[in-house]
Amino acid sequence: MRTVTFGVANSLDNFIARADGGVDWLQWTEEVAAFTSRFWKTIDTVVMGRKTYEVAAQRGTPAYPGVTNYVCSRTLTQNPAPAVELVTEDAVGFVARLKQGKGKGICIMGGGQLAAALFEGDVIDEVGLNVHPVLLGSGIPLFLPMQRQIDLELSEHQPLGNGCVLLRYRVKHRRRAAA
Amino acid sequence: MRTVTFGVANSLDNFIARADGGVDWLQWTEEVAAFTSRFWKTIDTVVMGRKTYEVAAQRGTPAYPGVTNYVCSRTLTQNPAPAVELVTEDAVGFVARLKQGKGKGICIMGGGQLAAALFEGDVIDEVGLNVHPVLLGSGIPLFLPMQRQIDLELSEHQPLGNGCVLLRYRVKHRRRAAA
Repeated sequence: MRTVTFGVANSLDNFIARADGGVDWLQWTEEVAAFTSRFWKTIDTVVMGRKTYEVAAQRGTPAYPGVTNYVCSRTLTQNPAPAVELVTEDAVGFVARLKQGKGKGICIMGGGQLAAALFEGDVIDEVGLNVHPVLLGSGIPLFLPMQRQIDLELSEHQPLGNGCVLLRYRVKHRRRAAA
Repeated sequence: MRTVTFGVANSLDNFIARADGGVDWLQWTEEVAAFTSRFWKTIDTVVMGRKTYEVAAQRGTPAYPGVTNYVCSRTLTQNPAPAVELVTEDAVGFVARLKQGKGKGICIMGGGQLAAALFEGDVIDEVGLNVHPVLLGSGIPLFLPMQRQIDLELSEHQPLGNGCVLLRYRVKHRRRAAA
């Protein structure tokens, strides 16, 4: 089964961007580049929500290179760009089916509604955060309210030279016992 | 100058309790007890907000033993219990004055409004979190919206055997340059 990772950089108060989408506070260092490069080799698919896609598209990078890019949306009716594939079906069912197929890992990009739905649907296997040493005070939240608790298991922790901390967790699946 | 520490245990999605105040998800281990014991020796004063006080009082522990307990409130008019001292003046000014006095460190208990006001007022020096490996999905938030960004510096990180991670930060004060 393919591994589904929800991975983002966040502030200590769990924002992924300022209210206006600004990410000027993100620190990009050689350590992060090396970590990202290693992770990137383990995946071949990116799944993002419409809002995350639109922010990325506005920045001129609608799709990540070298991987299949899916955009989940309940409002779009046609593919927003040739480089991405629109998914209009239920995101949990879609990702669950992707996991059963062949391929490398799958990365969920962006926070918000898509991540919350996929956590609730129990299709996310790993959470990777690059916790930045700042309280933004306001912004776009990493985690939205969820109907249930998600139990995690710490699998990796790495303080970086710039004061960021990489934390990685495995999701304790509800279904695992029955599998 | 006395050091003011904001220290709590939180879920990865930054709740300090379930919506009903429940903290059954908190893990208490010998490692945490040893850490807490060491920290407790460095302080002699606890400052908490009214809501935090009321939750503690309902549990039968309105005051922490061996330290001076202050309860900040804009609504209470008389001391709620003999073991605590009511503070009705502006909390930022009160804590700023406490810091100038003699004594050991000061610990801010609980999240929410008091912590946000004290962060905005730049009187908190350190942040200590015991990050638990769980997404609660809902609950009482650790951080409330703030009007400004608080820059931090990672000073300590320690993964515990139970999957929790202790993170400690120094607050980069705005006023330090002018001091």
